[in-house]
Amino acid sequence: MSDGEFEVIDRYFSQIGWQNSSSLILGPGDDCAVLSVPADEQLCVSTDTLLETVHFPRDCAGAIVAQRCFAAAFSDLAAMGAMPLGFTVALTMTGVDHTWLSGFSETLSRLSIQYEIPLVGGNLANGPLSVTLTVMGTTPTGQAIYRHGAQVGDVVYVTGHPGCAGAGLRYLDQAADHYQSLIQAYTAPTPRIDIGIGLRGLATAGIDISDGLLADLGHIAARSQVCLQLEQDAIPLSDSLLQCAGPELAMQLALTAGDDYELCFTAALTTKTAIRQLAERSGIEITPIGRVVEGQGIGWSGEAPAIEMAGYQHFSS
Amino acid sequence: MSDGEFEVIDRYFSQIGWQNSSSLILGPGDDCAVLSVPADEQLCVSTDTLLETVHFPRDCAGAIVAQRCFAAAFSDLAAMGAMPLGFTVALTMTGVDHTWLSGFSETLSRLSIQYEIPLVGGNLANGPLSVTLTVMGTTPTGQAIYRHGAQVGDVVYVTGHPGCAGAGLRYLDQAADHYQSLIQAYTAPTPRIDIGIGLRGLATAGIDISDGLLADLGHIAARSQVCLQLEQDAIPLSDSLLQCAGPELAMQLALTAGDDYELCFTAALTTKTAIRQLAERSGIEITPIGRVVEGQGIGWSGEAPAIEMAGYQHFSS
Repeated sequence: MSDGEFEVIDRYFSQIGWQNSSSLILGPGDDCAVLSVPADEQLCVSTDTLLETVHFPRDCAGAIVAQRCFAAAFSDLAAMGAMPLGFTVALTMTGVDHTWLSGFSETLSRLSIQYEIPLVGGNLANGPLSVTLTVMGTTPTGQAIYRHGAQVGDVVYVTGHPGCAGAGLRYLDQAADHYQSLIQAYTAPTPRIDIGIGLRGLATAGIDISDGLLADLGHIAARSQVCLQLEQDAIPLSDSLLQCAGPELAMQLALTAGDDYELCFTAALTTKTAIRQLAERSGIEITPIGRVVEGQGIGWSGEAPAIEMAGYQHFSS
Repeated sequence: MSDGEFEVIDRYFSQIGWQNSSSLILGPGDDCAVLSVPADEQLCVSTDTLLETVHFPRDCAGAIVAQRCFAAAFSDLAAMGAMPLGFTVALTMTGVDHTWLSGFSETLSRLSIQYEIPLVGGNLANGPLSVTLTVMGTTPTGQAIYRHGAQVGDVVYVTGHPGCAGAGLRYLDQAADHYQSLIQAYTAPTPRIDIGIGLRGLATAGIDISDGLLADLGHIAARSQVCLQLEQDAIPLSDSLLQCAGPELAMQLALTAGDDYELCFTAALTTKTAIRQLAERSGIEITPIGRVVEGQGIGWSGEAPAIEMAGYQHFSS
């Protein structure tokens, strides 16, 4: 990397993003960043690595990689009901690709400002393209949403329209209009931070969809020692997804693709109105897709969809 | 990676390390870990990536990589005077090398227990070998040690014997006894956590040596807008280093090698006794090597050592 580490950091990563955080006592540039944590709040922490060819295609634009890393990392905070506090970025890349770096850093900066989350530190090293984001957030003490709290009788919900991003990845090179909302779902997923915070005190268990809806609901079922019984007809398939992929592939993607970073969660039947109001406030559909019953794993009330379960394991060989 | 992500995590990374942390509310396995932060303390955060062939040699044993990553990451907390709170590990590797993984996870677990710092989360992905640690720690509000606080008249100190690890890297394949302490300095560096905490209220500025003593003191000088005037004869060269490398190379390595993770810092002359006592308590030498004067950069009182300055930029091309 002929330009040198410090020059690249100076040019693309110093003074980017949200600069007005009252929690940021000392930003990047020292051995550590220093942050204040609100009194009576607990710290939530998650780390995620996205690698070229594994988590995004070869030659994927820096702006898209930034957007996907940001969503992947912050949707973990959203799943806990956490308010973001800050994040670090560890980037490895071979050589200095100024076009890629511009797109990546400008997009990261824009998202940092949009969500008012400061970039608090980073690392740059010379190696195959990968991005590791570590995100920190806070919840009032005792109010974090875990995977293990689902109760028999709860309703199972999902936000948005899962499967759209998975379809978008398939159709990345399609130019026709009706593919664009799917491609957008892949290239610029939205972490459901506000919904996560809104679910504090409502959701009994929650997770973000990174491995696919069924796989991730399976984690809630396993941790909560319950069965999540879903209704095939209740799975929200977007019109675009149905139009582009047809009903079978649409259902397959909605249940097994892991690229949307939507949230799925369980909540008591008594909170139905509050959840409908949360959906209205956020402008994002929140759809009941089943109930929590005794047993284990994922079940279906009525006919089970005919899908391949490859999506259960997202890790590529 | 045929064994799959979850199997590898289960086998090598679940339930390892320090399990008795009173700060750890929820450990790895959910979307985030949840930690409590002591009241009236601020959070310090740093992230570091180590890559094969850039930061450690090809085919370097898992145990050595773990030890070096741990020291590199926690010495950043030490430099701030922070008490460690927890850390995350993002590992990318090609295929599943069980010997490497055993050595890596057992060593990481042992260090986590030795220093009583919980592993709070991680990520595993399929790619060229690299390890990214993100570390979190706390300092009482307002007591973090920054790079920018050096004052004219302060004394400049360094812990331990810089250059030993750099020599150890050169002599990794030497079997003779007199190389072993140097090799050990490279393969198992010690983050100076206790000394860092002991320096709260004493050090006016501090940094860990990751780019080389001169380069890192240069960061203190630049941030503090002062000159650090060093004495060549005061640089502490260990007997082993002198014996193995000879005086010229020993000085070169002590000033420019960045593999020791010692601390260098500045402190007022009036704290001399307290710093001597800290050295005695910790069993680690802390050597005065110069003074802070008006000006900028690094200066020498008396003759400047004849060294090549390549070590100023540790980033490999």
